[in-house]
Amino acid sequence: MEFKSAPNTIGKPIKCKAAVCRGAGEALVIEEIEVAPPKPGEVRIKILCSSLCHSDLTYWKFKSGPLSFFPRILGHEAAGVVESVGENVDEVRFGDLVIPVFRRNCGECRDCKSPKGNTCTKFAVRYQSGMPRDGTSRFKDKDGQSIHHLLNVSSFSEYTVVDITHVVKMNPDFPIDMACLLSCGVTTGIGASWKVAKIEEGSTVAIFGLGAVGLAVAEGARLRGASKIIGVDLIPEKFELGKKFGLTDFINPTNCGESSVAEGGCTIILGMEMHGKPISINPYELLAERTIIGCLFGGIKPKVDVPVLAQKYMQKELNLEGFKTHEVKFEDINQAFDLLEQKKSLRCIIWMDA
Amino acid sequence: MEFKSAPNTIGKPIKCKAAVCRGAGEALVIEEIEVAPPKPGEVRIKILCSSLCHSDLTYWKFKSGPLSFFPRILGHEAAGVVESVGENVDEVRFGDLVIPVFRRNCGECRDCKSPKGNTCTKFAVRYQSGMPRDGTSRFKDKDGQSIHHLLNVSSFSEYTVVDITHVVKMNPDFPIDMACLLSCGVTTGIGASWKVAKIEEGSTVAIFGLGAVGLAVAEGARLRGASKIIGVDLIPEKFELGKKFGLTDFINPTNCGESSVAEGGCTIILGMEMHGKPISINPYELLAERTIIGCLFGGIKPKVDVPVLAQKYMQKELNLEGFKTHEVKFEDINQAFDLLEQKKSLRCIIWMDA
Repeated sequence: MEFKSAPNTIGKPIKCKAAVCRGAGEALVIEEIEVAPPKPGEVRIKILCSSLCHSDLTYWKFKSGPLSFFPRILGHEAAGVVESVGENVDEVRFGDLVIPVFRRNCGECRDCKSPKGNTCTKFAVRYQSGMPRDGTSRFKDKDGQSIHHLLNVSSFSEYTVVDITHVVKMNPDFPIDMACLLSCGVTTGIGASWKVAKIEEGSTVAIFGLGAVGLAVAEGARLRGASKIIGVDLIPEKFELGKKFGLTDFINPTNCGESSVAEGGCTIILGMEMHGKPISINPYELLAERTIIGCLFGGIKPKVDVPVLAQKYMQKELNLEGFKTHEVKFEDINQAFDLLEQKKSLRCIIWMDA
Repeated sequence: MEFKSAPNTIGKPIKCKAAVCRGAGEALVIEEIEVAPPKPGEVRIKILCSSLCHSDLTYWKFKSGPLSFFPRILGHEAAGVVESVGENVDEVRFGDLVIPVFRRNCGECRDCKSPKGNTCTKFAVRYQSGMPRDGTSRFKDKDGQSIHHLLNVSSFSEYTVVDITHVVKMNPDFPIDMACLLSCGVTTGIGASWKVAKIEEGSTVAIFGLGAVGLAVAEGARLRGASKIIGVDLIPEKFELGKKFGLTDFINPTNCGESSVAEGGCTIILGMEMHGKPISINPYELLAERTIIGCLFGGIKPKVDVPVLAQKYMQKELNLEGFKTHEVKFEDINQAFDLLEQKKSLRCIIWMDA
C-alpha cells in the first residue's frame, strides 16, 4: 500500500491530474489541477480507482437546474488511500485504504445513532453543488478557477478531499477494485434489498431495471433466500446475465401489460429519475395497503453496514466480481461513459495508475 | 342480550325498517324492506346501533363513477347480535354480540396467516358495490327492487346480512356503543398508529386532520408513549378537544407555510381522499428516505387485533368514550349526517331501538 511513511505533501496543495467536465454532456478533459490540503474534519485521498455509476451520467447531463454545476469533477464510486487528514480526524491516517461515499454518516447525530435508516442530520446545510460542508471547493484549475465537487466525493482526480463523515475505512488486504464497487451502486442495491425491502426467505421480488443496481438488488434477494426474483428490463439478454445474481424469472415490459405490485406489497424507489418528473399515484391503489419507500444508498449506514458487506465478500457469499465487466485507464475515462451509455457495461473500473 | 333462544325467523326473509339512500346526497328515507336469509358463509345480524363514519358521507355523495350505487343502504360502523347464520358458519351463533367490519379477514389465506398487514386474498373478485361475495343483494324494497349494500356491511337497517369473514365476535358484556366505535374509525386510527406507523416511545407524530380517525391516531400515539403529538387542523378548538387523546401541540395550517415530513420520516395515508385525485410526489424528496404507506382499517386484522383493543378498553387504558359526542334515534338518522357535515360531532351513535 502507498504512504507507508508520512507523505511529504502534508499541509501543501498537490498538483495532479483530474478529468474535468467543462459543460453538460461534454467529453471529460484530463487537466492539471491543484488540490488544497484538507480542512478540519476532512481527508485528502489518493484515488486508486473509480467505477462509473449511472448517477455520474445523470449529473454529467444536467444542462440546467439546481443540480447543474460546471466545471465539475465527477466520480463518486471509488477506492483510495489516505494521503493526509485535517484537524480533528482520528478515524483514519495516511496509508489507510478507504472508500469515499456520497451518503454521510457522522455516527454522532440522533439519526446516525438510531438503528433505523441512513439519514445523517449533523449538518443542517446541504450543498447541492456537492461541495464540502463549508460550501467551498478544494479544486482549482491551472487558471486558478474553482472547480465544483460532486456528491462530496469527486473521484475522477488523482487526489480529492472528502469529509471524514463520507469516508469508510476498509481492511488493508481488501481487493481495491472490489472495495470500489462497494462505494455506491452495488451497496445501494443490496441495501435496498436487505435494509429497506427487508426481503425474507420465500419472498417474491420484482426488479425494474437490470443495471448494476438492479442486479445488486437481485444478489441481495438471492442471499436472503427470496424464492422468486423477477427481472423486468427491455433487454432480453439481461436474463442470462442476471441468473448469476439470482434472477429466476424475466419479463420484458414491451411484451405484456402493466406490471404492478400486489396489495400489501412494497415498492422501493432507489434511484434518481432523470428529469425529476413528479410521481403520480392513485390514492385508492395506495390505500390497499401499498407502501412506497424512497431511499439513498439503499438505507445503508456507510460506516456500520459496508464492513458487513465486505465481510460477506471475503467469506465468498457475496458475488462482487460479476459486476466488474470492463476496465480502462484513466486517460480513457470517456470510454467508460460510452460503455455505460450503450448499456454494454455493468461497472467499468477506471484505474488511475494502469 | 336478544335471542336467548333460536329466533323463529331462521331461514325466512325478515321485513324490517331501513334508512335507504335513493340518490347521491339525498336525505335517507326510512322504508320497510325485506332482508333475505343468510347464504352459506353469511350471518344475519340484528343491528343494535351504528355510528356515522365519514366514509358513509363520502359514499353518500358519489354522484357518479365506479363507487356510485343507488338505491343503497349505507352504514358500516355498527354493533349487533347474530339472528341466524348460513351453512358453514361455526364461528358465531344466534345471540352473539358482534361487530361487522368492512375489511375482510378469512383467517385462512396466506395473507391472513402472515403476521403482516391486513390484506385478505380469499376471494379474488371484489364487488365495488359492496355486495356479498356472490355479487348479489340481500335487500329488497317494497316493490321488490334490489338495494345495494355498502362495504359488505350496510348497517342502517334493523337487519343486515354480512359475510362471516367480515364479522368480529365481541365479549357479551362489552358495552354496545363502545363495540360499535371499534367497528371502523377509531380502530383505523389506533391501528395506523400501532401497526402501520409503529409509533415508538419518544416519537414525534404529526396528524393532519383531527376528526375521529385523526384523534384515534393521537390516542394510539399517546398509548405508545410518543413525546410530541402535533395536531394539524383548520379548527383551533380541536386542540382542547384533542388534549384528552394526547395532543401536545397544535398547528393551524392557515397560519404557517407548508408542514412536512422529516428526512427518514414516514407518511401514512389512512383515509379516502374525496375525489380520488392522484397524489403527486417529488421523487427527490421521496429519495431522501421518506416512506409513504397506504392502509385500510389501519392495518388491523379484524379478528386478531380488535379483541386486543377491546381488552385495552376494559382495562381502562384506551379512551373510547371521548369519541362518542352525540346520540340520535334511528328515525333521526339524517341529524347524524348534519352533525358530521358541520364538523360538530366526532361520533354520533344511531340507536335502532331508542
